[in-house]
Amino acid sequence: MHSAIGIDFGGTSIKSGLVRDGRILQRGTLIHTPQYSGAESLLEALKEVVAELRRADPDVRALGIGLPGIVDSVNGVVHELTNVPGWNDVPLRDRLERDTGLCVTVENDANAMAYGEWKYGAAKDGRHVVCITLGTGVGGGLILNGQLYRGAQLGAGEAGHMSIDYRGVPGPYGNFGALERYVGNNQIAGRALELYSAAGVEKTLEQCAPVELAQAARSGDAIARGVWEAVGAEVGAALASVVWLLNPDTIVIGGGVAKARELLFEPILKSLRGRTLSIFHEHLRVVAATLDNDAGIIGNAALALDSLASRSNNP
Amino acid sequence: MHSAIGIDFGGTSIKSGLVRDGRILQRGTLIHTPQYSGAESLLEALKEVVAELRRADPDVRALGIGLPGIVDSVNGVVHELTNVPGWNDVPLRDRLERDTGLCVTVENDANAMAYGEWKYGAAKDGRHVVCITLGTGVGGGLILNGQLYRGAQLGAGEAGHMSIDYRGVPGPYGNFGALERYVGNNQIAGRALELYSAAGVEKTLEQCAPVELAQAARSGDAIARGVWEAVGAEVGAALASVVWLLNPDTIVIGGGVAKARELLFEPILKSLRGRTLSIFHEHLRVVAATLDNDAGIIGNAALALDSLASRSNNP
Repeated sequence: MHSAIGIDFGGTSIKSGLVRDGRILQRGTLIHTPQYSGAESLLEALKEVVAELRRADPDVRALGIGLPGIVDSVNGVVHELTNVPGWNDVPLRDRLERDTGLCVTVENDANAMAYGEWKYGAAKDGRHVVCITLGTGVGGGLILNGQLYRGAQLGAGEAGHMSIDYRGVPGPYGNFGALERYVGNNQIAGRALELYSAAGVEKTLEQCAPVELAQAARSGDAIARGVWEAVGAEVGAALASVVWLLNPDTIVIGGGVAKARELLFEPILKSLRGRTLSIFHEHLRVVAATLDNDAGIIGNAALALDSLASRSNNP
Repeated sequence: MHSAIGIDFGGTSIKSGLVRDGRILQRGTLIHTPQYSGAESLLEALKEVVAELRRADPDVRALGIGLPGIVDSVNGVVHELTNVPGWNDVPLRDRLERDTGLCVTVENDANAMAYGEWKYGAAKDGRHVVCITLGTGVGGGLILNGQLYRGAQLGAGEAGHMSIDYRGVPGPYGNFGALERYVGNNQIAGRALELYSAAGVEKTLEQCAPVELAQAARSGDAIARGVWEAVGAEVGAALASVVWLLNPDTIVIGGGVAKARELLFEPILKSLRGRTLSIFHEHLRVVAATLDNDAGIIGNAALALDSLASRSNNP
């Protein structure tokens, strides 16, 4: 089994590692994204990390990088990044291949995470897998018929923008009732704050963040419990629509908000059982992501290795 | 190019034909489904029609049949049919293969229609296709990554049961706000009747059926126009969620309700443009089904031929 370098390019930091068989053998020095202005200086920093990781395994031949934004994974071009300025139509794959001599893949971050969970994490052995990440935003990735599904413009999997109420809360892309507008990090905190305030309980917005809210719920706080019930029911309603449409065998739920575990999973399961036919939910696995923050590193390394293998098979 | 027999098994009638290259060369005698009690007598009628069509082309080697209900297309077993009693776990493929000596495929009717539209109809050359049929019920079929997508229990594509309002109208399978509960044939008529009645206009439910309602809208009837606007907006909202999730290149809209054409398509397009990012809708084709009532016959014949070809390639 060969090793590969996986890079998880985020708006706050860029994590990397040398990966073999789904395990991180060595981590690269963390890059703080906002310290760099523009693509060129960041490319230099990326090359240094790659060189560092190659010293640990001079035989490494593949490099996978995942980025948040509009990424053309077929041509390896980054069209635009979310919260990272200066990345407009950067031919990242060609640049990195030229500079490193490695076989490079460039992928959307949510797809890479889904790929990692499918190959080595919670969705192992799944054939039709829906991954959803609940954080500040709600993202997703799909494995269908045993392969990463990207769609026509390589933008598929945006479960957070699916509407749960066609006349609901307006969102940034013109949709109404997009799931993200109900169960994003900030929306959860805002809802809790409002309920506490209506009940005469003084809290700050920070005290209503998902981590704190989960603690409160576990201590028996009725308002916190109610918020998690509602959030789980809404995520469950959106997933029920996904189940009717795609009939998956596995749903993986990750991201910071998913750390509420049973507080979130119980109402999600209740929603799925209540809203779909038994043939759809009886054999459905609904599981927490297991690779956590490493899903991107591991998924990108796996994508790069699989791409290298298919290039060797189809020269 | 070989010919194949395609059979479209419906609750009211069973249509069949000898198909070559997507065209029906000869039609089989229509079978009136309710005249037969149970699977055995219907199987006899099916065999007669098959014999009739084989006389037109003695070289035919493949037969595809599509049925409404829970169908295991991998094992060729009909678990249960919608509105047709007496079909419980019938090993239809094996029965027909034994009795006819043909290579037989058994498929869900909506999948077969989607396959027909993709191979020979409105979705030709599409790679990621969402087909939706609007009638008494709302069904669907998916072609993803250039292949029919069936999902884990072979039940995928049920767009009519996706929710557009998670706290909306309750439906038969426990879901709330299922699209079908707003835009099914009867629901459209019921909504129109209510609006006419509130406006003091006397109409019968029959006069509010989609065909009549489309005529009224074209004659400038404001209530009828309003109903089509609302129905199109609701279908469009559901499709917008599908677009965010699957990023298709083609959406095919068929079924009786789709005969309202521009009255329905204009608000659907408006919804899609308003509710999704331009990269998703700019290159998206939204088209009316072109094979109409023949999509099932043609699609099932195509499925049977393709199955025959793959059996020959993987003996």
